[in-house]
Amino acid sequence: MEGEEFRTAAREMADYIVDYLTNIRQRRVLPEVQPGYLRPLLPSAAPDTPDTWQDIMADIERVIMPGVTHWHSPQFHAYFPTANSYPAILADMLSDAIGCIGFTWISSPACTELEVVMMDWLGQLLGLPQHFLAASGGKGGGVIQGTASEATLVAMLSARTKTLRQRQQQGDTHTNHSTLVAYTSDQAHSSVERAGMLAGVLLRQVPSDQEFAMRGPALRDMVKADIEKGLVPFFVVGTTGATPACSFDNLREIGEVAKEFSMWFHVDAAYAGSALVCEEFRYLVDGLELATSFNFNPHKWLLVTFDCSAMWIKDANEVVDAFNVDPLYLKHDQQGQMPDYRHWQIPLGRRFRSLKLWFVMRMYGREGLQAHIRHQVALAHQFEDYVKQDSRFELILPVTLGLVCFRLKNENSEVNEALLKNINAGGVIHLVPAKIKDVYFLRFAVCSRMTQPEDVEKAWREVLRQTQLTLEKK
Amino acid sequence: MEGEEFRTAAREMADYIVDYLTNIRQRRVLPEVQPGYLRPLLPSAAPDTPDTWQDIMADIERVIMPGVTHWHSPQFHAYFPTANSYPAILADMLSDAIGCIGFTWISSPACTELEVVMMDWLGQLLGLPQHFLAASGGKGGGVIQGTASEATLVAMLSARTKTLRQRQQQGDTHTNHSTLVAYTSDQAHSSVERAGMLAGVLLRQVPSDQEFAMRGPALRDMVKADIEKGLVPFFVVGTTGATPACSFDNLREIGEVAKEFSMWFHVDAAYAGSALVCEEFRYLVDGLELATSFNFNPHKWLLVTFDCSAMWIKDANEVVDAFNVDPLYLKHDQQGQMPDYRHWQIPLGRRFRSLKLWFVMRMYGREGLQAHIRHQVALAHQFEDYVKQDSRFELILPVTLGLVCFRLKNENSEVNEALLKNINAGGVIHLVPAKIKDVYFLRFAVCSRMTQPEDVEKAWREVLRQTQLTLEKK
Repeated sequence: MEGEEFRTAAREMADYIVDYLTNIRQRRVLPEVQPGYLRPLLPSAAPDTPDTWQDIMADIERVIMPGVTHWHSPQFHAYFPTANSYPAILADMLSDAIGCIGFTWISSPACTELEVVMMDWLGQLLGLPQHFLAASGGKGGGVIQGTASEATLVAMLSARTKTLRQRQQQGDTHTNHSTLVAYTSDQAHSSVERAGMLAGVLLRQVPSDQEFAMRGPALRDMVKADIEKGLVPFFVVGTTGATPACSFDNLREIGEVAKEFSMWFHVDAAYAGSALVCEEFRYLVDGLELATSFNFNPHKWLLVTFDCSAMWIKDANEVVDAFNVDPLYLKHDQQGQMPDYRHWQIPLGRRFRSLKLWFVMRMYGREGLQAHIRHQVALAHQFEDYVKQDSRFELILPVTLGLVCFRLKNENSEVNEALLKNINAGGVIHLVPAKIKDVYFLRFAVCSRMTQPEDVEKAWREVLRQTQLTLEKK
Repeated sequence: MEGEEFRTAAREMADYIVDYLTNIRQRRVLPEVQPGYLRPLLPSAAPDTPDTWQDIMADIERVIMPGVTHWHSPQFHAYFPTANSYPAILADMLSDAIGCIGFTWISSPACTELEVVMMDWLGQLLGLPQHFLAASGGKGGGVIQGTASEATLVAMLSARTKTLRQRQQQGDTHTNHSTLVAYTSDQAHSSVERAGMLAGVLLRQVPSDQEFAMRGPALRDMVKADIEKGLVPFFVVGTTGATPACSFDNLREIGEVAKEFSMWFHVDAAYAGSALVCEEFRYLVDGLELATSFNFNPHKWLLVTFDCSAMWIKDANEVVDAFNVDPLYLKHDQQGQMPDYRHWQIPLGRRFRSLKLWFVMRMYGREGLQAHIRHQVALAHQFEDYVKQDSRFELILPVTLGLVCFRLKNENSEVNEALLKNINAGGVIHLVPAKIKDVYFLRFAVCSRMTQPEDVEKAWREVLRQTQLTLEKK
């Protein structure tokens, strides 16, 4: 396939995409295929000679679509949203065509420099503390990571290197990986536990309070107990909008404890961070100026396609120090004048992802992004109101952003689990459950940017229908 | 921007892309901008209200292109290739539109299942040992990672967990991270050293032989010496097509040593692996059946856009064991029947990247992919012949694949360094240097899939022109 054929194929694909997204409500949100469905639909090996473009286009509906979980269906309410928008798709097309690998400044100056400026634009949109922005002229700056998991791991590994080096310089020969302790809430995402496994350090889960928030005193008690055991607290992750119930750690209290014990303080706002484009939600990150690093995923809730995880660091040198290896074939004359982002991340290679941020921020504008967030929060409140008005249900937490956590009040976990299963088997909407302190509940997340009040109403009607069936069968 | 506007914009973007790639020879391969060039070209903050699509399209030439290093220019001969092709761009468009996150089977069955089958197709195309393929019915299988750096890290962390657990089960209380030792060649990519830093283990560089290959005896000597010191050898990386001079470790010898000392044997063929689609290059991986894991980047030399790094593991359970955390919101009823790829990688989230492999393998066919590799190898030999015919130059190694390493024979490193700088300043072609055992040399890599014999001839003429200028100025 060369240029002229591509022009035609790209038009067909663009038409297919618009038709897919426009008519997505007609598709069953969760597919009905069984594991192993796909292999029999394909030849057992790649073809020797080219298939035609028309064969491939036809196979999208025959092979792929029957097995797709439609994350952008307005009936998809599982996990958290993953973002999608037309400007982001266009930016990815351009990124693919330029196809540069931005590991150093010289390997494509535009790739690095647009990222520096876009991370400033984005940081300003969110009202982040000045010291996180490159434009402040300090040591801070932003970088696009692939996922929040990677951002947490980058922060943890940087903190590990920093602490071990400091201890070594102080003549401490006792401290090593296995005496380092990291902390996070019992509500934190599983990727924090995983980062601890990968970094080879101890990770403690601090019990959260009644609103599922990690608080300063509980953290301080644990830190002190560990120090008495001869361990070395070095890192704490605070979560803004935790996955199970979208709860919010008390960043100010955690930040004070982190300062007291010289720990790196990383804030993971993977989902909720997008809401900071609206000033009325910034109270959720009160104390953020105490953080060493901050991360959220525009690819979740800010209309930028996966992957685009935005991370800011107060002192970028502390990351570079942990990740720097410098072979001759990657050296260049302008080193030190602009970031070489390869030192800021786990992989070496990187795509031109800042184009997506640029296109989306420009084509929505600040007001468009705010409108998107406010609209989705309103939809969550609409569902919350339905729950409140039906005395058979209870909310796990009042709704703050786009997630509603609810359960059948007078029923045990088994009945609620049956309800969840019946809802998903019904095929009208898709939800996933969570459990906090042995209480099983259902999570209704507003996900698709195309979700409208009538979709939320439809979802609630389906919950009611399945509730009736579940309680009858009990 | 909604659907109808997107149809038009996507057409404009497709046209822009075709024009960009068709006329790319007219652009200076390496930009002339200075660090900091971009910020003054943009407003200091995101707009409040939307910019128009036409503004954005116009800014690609005004803001972005002056700072792009054109990796797909037939005059780009730096680093190693990064792939680009029209079928891959189309697949990415579809992947963006579906926009699913394939962390578990249920989160989008098609995303997981197409990846399983495509990794089998690709493994067959390369003639990999059967035990790496899921279709073999064994414990092996393939997964798409982001980069070779991540694949190396995943293998190393899995080996670390496996070794520490085994030692623990044997009642060994002495072994920990800091007593583990990994090995690689002194020619290995910097990402291996980095993986060692991140994993917190010792990493030894085994001196390569006169053809820059790591050999069994040198490795065995180091391993034995470490065991005598009370250290625990656990992991070795063999490289097929190392970055500095595209040299090849002796996999069979390394595999035998790995077996003897029960080490995990990872093979990194990031660049060269693509050549295995041609049977005549498979001798380069003689002994591959002894490997525990194997990785190469279709996004380098097999026409699949970044990121798509293909990794196969002999026993996938050994990776899952090291990475598994299992919160309720990610559990599903079909667990265990198909891979949940979140346990095979560093991040949790993942895009629908197997679409790119599917589109590319189908639209090129086995023969098309072979023709691409053979054409590029022939171009490297064309350049090699020029070098051989000019007695002022010497080759560092005979050419095997698409890289030619050469230098001015009777001149010191400073003169060769001056030649490299002059070539890059000339703006006609772009090369990067490398150094092995204190010998500085220039690397000519065949990168763009559009490179033709006349481009190679042009490159050589430029080398001659700059050689004359450099020697005159000496």
